[in-house]
Amino acid sequence: MKRIGFLLLAVVTVAGIVAHAAGQSDGDSSPIYGVKIPAGYRDWQLIAVKQLHFAGKGEQLRAQLGNDIAIKAFKEGTLPFPDGAIIAAIHWTRVPSEDNNKVLDGPFPGTQSFVIGSRVNVQFMVKDSKKYAATGGWGFADFTDGKPGDKALHETCFPCHTPAKDRDYVFTNYAR
Amino acid sequence: MKRIGFLLLAVVTVAGIVAHAAGQSDGDSSPIYGVKIPAGYRDWQLIAVKQLHFAGKGEQLRAQLGNDIAIKAFKEGTLPFPDGAIIAAIHWTRVPSEDNNKVLDGPFPGTQSFVIGSRVNVQFMVKDSKKYAATGGWGFADFTDGKPGDKALHETCFPCHTPAKDRDYVFTNYAR
Repeated sequence: MKRIGFLLLAVVTVAGIVAHAAGQSDGDSSPIYGVKIPAGYRDWQLIAVKQLHFAGKGEQLRAQLGNDIAIKAFKEGTLPFPDGAIIAAIHWTRVPSEDNNKVLDGPFPGTQSFVIGSRVNVQFMVKDSKKYAATGGWGFADFTDGKPGDKALHETCFPCHTPAKDRDYVFTNYAR
Repeated sequence: MKRIGFLLLAVVTVAGIVAHAAGQSDGDSSPIYGVKIPAGYRDWQLIAVKQLHFAGKGEQLRAQLGNDIAIKAFKEGTLPFPDGAIIAAIHWTRVPSEDNNKVLDGPFPGTQSFVIGSRVNVQFMVKDSKKYAATGGWGFADFTDGKPGDKALHETCFPCHTPAKDRDYVFTNYAR
C-alpha cells in the first residue's frame, strides 16, 4: 500500500511538472476548448489598452497581454499567428480617481482621471492550428474569479471573432 | 592621428556599451534630471491602465509599465521604491473602434469600444535616492517623439507628485 501511495504521488507530481512546463496552471479548463489559465500570464508584455462603455454592464478598462510568441508576431506583423501564441485580455471595472483629479484639476480644470477598480474577468486565445482547426486555429477561454464561464458563453467566442478573419481573428493591434 | 582616431572610437564605443548596460538609450536627456529614454522600456511588464478626459487636450488611454525592480516592489508593496526602479507611463490618444462596435452592438446594443489612436508622449520616473535626493529620490522625464520637454515642463513633475508622498510619490497602484 505504501508503495502504491508513493507511485501515485510520483505520477501526480510528474503530471504537475509537465503541466507547468507547458505553461498551464492548475485549475479548471474552459468548456469546448479545454483551455486553462496560463501560468504567469499577468507578467506577459503589453499588446494594447482598451476602454469599453459596456451597455448594461458598466465601464471597463482593458489590457491585452501576450506571451513571447504572440508579442513577436504582433511586432513583426506575422499572420496567421504561429502555434503557441497566447493572447490574454484582462477586463477591470473603471472608477474615477479622486487622488488624480485633485492634482490635475489645478493646472487642467475639468480633467477627469479614471483608474482600475476591480477585476471583472480574463479571456484567453490560444493558437493551435491543428487542435482548434474548426475555430480558425484558436481555442478560447473566459474566466471569472478563476472559474471558466459555461458552454453557452464559450459558444459565442468564435462567431464574435469572425469579422476579424483577415487579421487571423484578432481585433487588437499592437500599441507602439 | 590614426591612433587618436582609434582611441576616440574605442572610448565612444565603450561609453556606448556602458550606457546600454545601464539600460540607457542613446538620445537626449530630460532637463533638470538628465533622464534618457530607457532601452527596451516598451517590453516592460504592465503596472496598470488609466483613462484621462484631459480638459482641452482630448481623451487619452494610458499604460504604466515597470522595470523588474519596480514591478517586484509594486507586487510586494515595498515602500519607498528601491534605487534602480523605473516607471514608464505611455500616453496615447483614445479613438472609437468601429470594428469592435459593429461586433459588440449586436449582443450589447449601445456598447462603445475605444482603442489606442496614436502615441502622445511617454514619461519616466527613475529612482536614485542619492542623485535625486531633492525631489523625493525620483528623477523625471517627459518625451514627445523621442525629444524631452523643456525645463518649465519638468519643473512641474515633482510638485504634481507631492500629494502622493506617502506612497513614495507614485500615484499608480498595481492592477491585480
